[in-house]
Amino acid sequence: MQRIINNCDEVVEDMLKGFERCHHDLIRVDENNPRVVISKEATKKRKVGIVTGGGSGHKPAFIGYCGKNMVDAVAVGEIFSSPTAKSFYDAFCAVDQGMGVACLYGNYAGDNMNVKMAMELAEDDDIVVKTVVANDDVASADKADRTKRRGVAGEIFMWKVGGAKAAMGASLDEVIAAAQKAIDHTRSVGVGLSPCTIPANGKPNFTIEEGTMEFGIGHHGEPGIKVEKLGTAKEMAKEMTRLVIEDKPFKAGSEVAVLVSGLGATPVMEQYIFFEEVAKLLEEQGICIYKSYVGNYFTSLEMNGVTLTIMELDEELKECVDMEVETMGMTQLARR
Amino acid sequence: MQRIINNCDEVVEDMLKGFERCHHDLIRVDENNPRVVISKEATKKRKVGIVTGGGSGHKPAFIGYCGKNMVDAVAVGEIFSSPTAKSFYDAFCAVDQGMGVACLYGNYAGDNMNVKMAMELAEDDDIVVKTVVANDDVASADKADRTKRRGVAGEIFMWKVGGAKAAMGASLDEVIAAAQKAIDHTRSVGVGLSPCTIPANGKPNFTIEEGTMEFGIGHHGEPGIKVEKLGTAKEMAKEMTRLVIEDKPFKAGSEVAVLVSGLGATPVMEQYIFFEEVAKLLEEQGICIYKSYVGNYFTSLEMNGVTLTIMELDEELKECVDMEVETMGMTQLARR
Repeated sequence: MQRIINNCDEVVEDMLKGFERCHHDLIRVDENNPRVVISKEATKKRKVGIVTGGGSGHKPAFIGYCGKNMVDAVAVGEIFSSPTAKSFYDAFCAVDQGMGVACLYGNYAGDNMNVKMAMELAEDDDIVVKTVVANDDVASADKADRTKRRGVAGEIFMWKVGGAKAAMGASLDEVIAAAQKAIDHTRSVGVGLSPCTIPANGKPNFTIEEGTMEFGIGHHGEPGIKVEKLGTAKEMAKEMTRLVIEDKPFKAGSEVAVLVSGLGATPVMEQYIFFEEVAKLLEEQGICIYKSYVGNYFTSLEMNGVTLTIMELDEELKECVDMEVETMGMTQLARR
Repeated sequence: MQRIINNCDEVVEDMLKGFERCHHDLIRVDENNPRVVISKEATKKRKVGIVTGGGSGHKPAFIGYCGKNMVDAVAVGEIFSSPTAKSFYDAFCAVDQGMGVACLYGNYAGDNMNVKMAMELAEDDDIVVKTVVANDDVASADKADRTKRRGVAGEIFMWKVGGAKAAMGASLDEVIAAAQKAIDHTRSVGVGLSPCTIPANGKPNFTIEEGTMEFGIGHHGEPGIKVEKLGTAKEMAKEMTRLVIEDKPFKAGSEVAVLVSGLGATPVMEQYIFFEEVAKLLEEQGICIYKSYVGNYFTSLEMNGVTLTIMELDEELKECVDMEVETMGMTQLARR
């Protein structure tokens, strides 16, 4: 296992120390809970608090989206494991200013359970918490079972929209409605070309044969819907775009935001090659790309592979997407 | 070879199409030379033009630093190969506004030759071009032979400083002096944990044995100064920091910018673990970190490994480092 670590059982602690030191202008670690990261902007003005949380190993997700006009506090889990209920609760407490907290997270059993427990604790403190549960991964369950689907890179759009809305001074219900709209308008799918290794395990807990790809893979190596011969970028883009477009469905004339993310070890060069193929397919179908993101936005340690996420936009979502944001994972100036 | 490409001989063309489509608000590809990328800000106001260039496969370098307040035009080479003299020349022509062009590039034989030829062509057009040649890699030659050293991730600081200075309205000589100062104040070293594969070759052209690391590796897999047993992040940081500090030397009381970059397949989590160890060592020696960057800033396809770059700052360099910048590889708001 070729890794740059000190102790395989302390990678999250060690990473958080470096993260806080590097980004001390943007975030701080909660002094009472080393598994909660808080934006330095979180309570600078009175607004709805935006919280998320999830397992580690997906950087920039989740802590990399903590900062100005995006996420206010993040509960941090072990590698590929849910944060504790206590960490979600502490995150709620850190950012609540009496306007309530929007907890925007992904649909995984551990996260669902721990968020629920944290909300019960918050209720005792009269902190109002409402949730949006991301379920953008079309490969993780049939459309009829959409509530069973996992949240993947579409969460980034959910945070971007929720964070922007809160920064504009919206109420908790308005923030929740916008974040829910964002994820309802979003679909994703991923393809894996090589597995990854949890440091404490020391070897991959799944395999992808050379010359094949796992179509529909999850962010923790959850099996996809099929194993296929490794295709060209064009072939991958065609099948992935088809799945995503048909599921929603996205229609001619609509405007979308597109996010292509590498899974960790994918050269960024290849992500642009893949994006170009996706963009040509969308163009052919009359779907207009309003804004695009290509890069390592939501990874799975050193997995090789790529995810495609598309969100249909309306005027409200465009305004949110365009807002200036400053985080480790995404910084953009206000749109000119 | 697990890759997301269409044709291994056309990866650079295909990548550039996707890059231009994604970042059309920041850059355009020269209509007469598809291997020149030009910032949309390049000629918005009259100033010295900033040009660089180099082989592909290092994304964000080089085109990822083309944009507002950084690089104005980039000559793009094949994977790990110098751009042509014609491409450097076309880049000069695209950004010259009569105030001259600063060509800030890395010390490689092909680039040196092609920049020299391009400058001869430019001279015939009365375009004044001056150069700074980055040589920040301490492992690539002895200090007595500093002019033989390669340029690596320190080039990012050179572009940041040169770009900022030009944006402030400085003359060509002032821009060159500032960029030269930036690289003279900068030292880097890299460690490789796994090799990478040029798509057209289909297999790595060097090997790194499991359990070992190549200390002092170059951005194209150039051999380092020693092969060692793979150490902990702390051990790697100690040896790399020592080499960098002693070479300049950086002294107690100085302020520095630190850049830690993954080489492509290194989980960002590990880069923060490594950064924390570096930061502790600098602190012990009384060296103060003014600004830090951690992430995949200068890669080598899917190589696993990490580079450390440190630049000593004075007031002029700090002002340049703090300037707002908007590129694919680095976007930062003006310092608050």
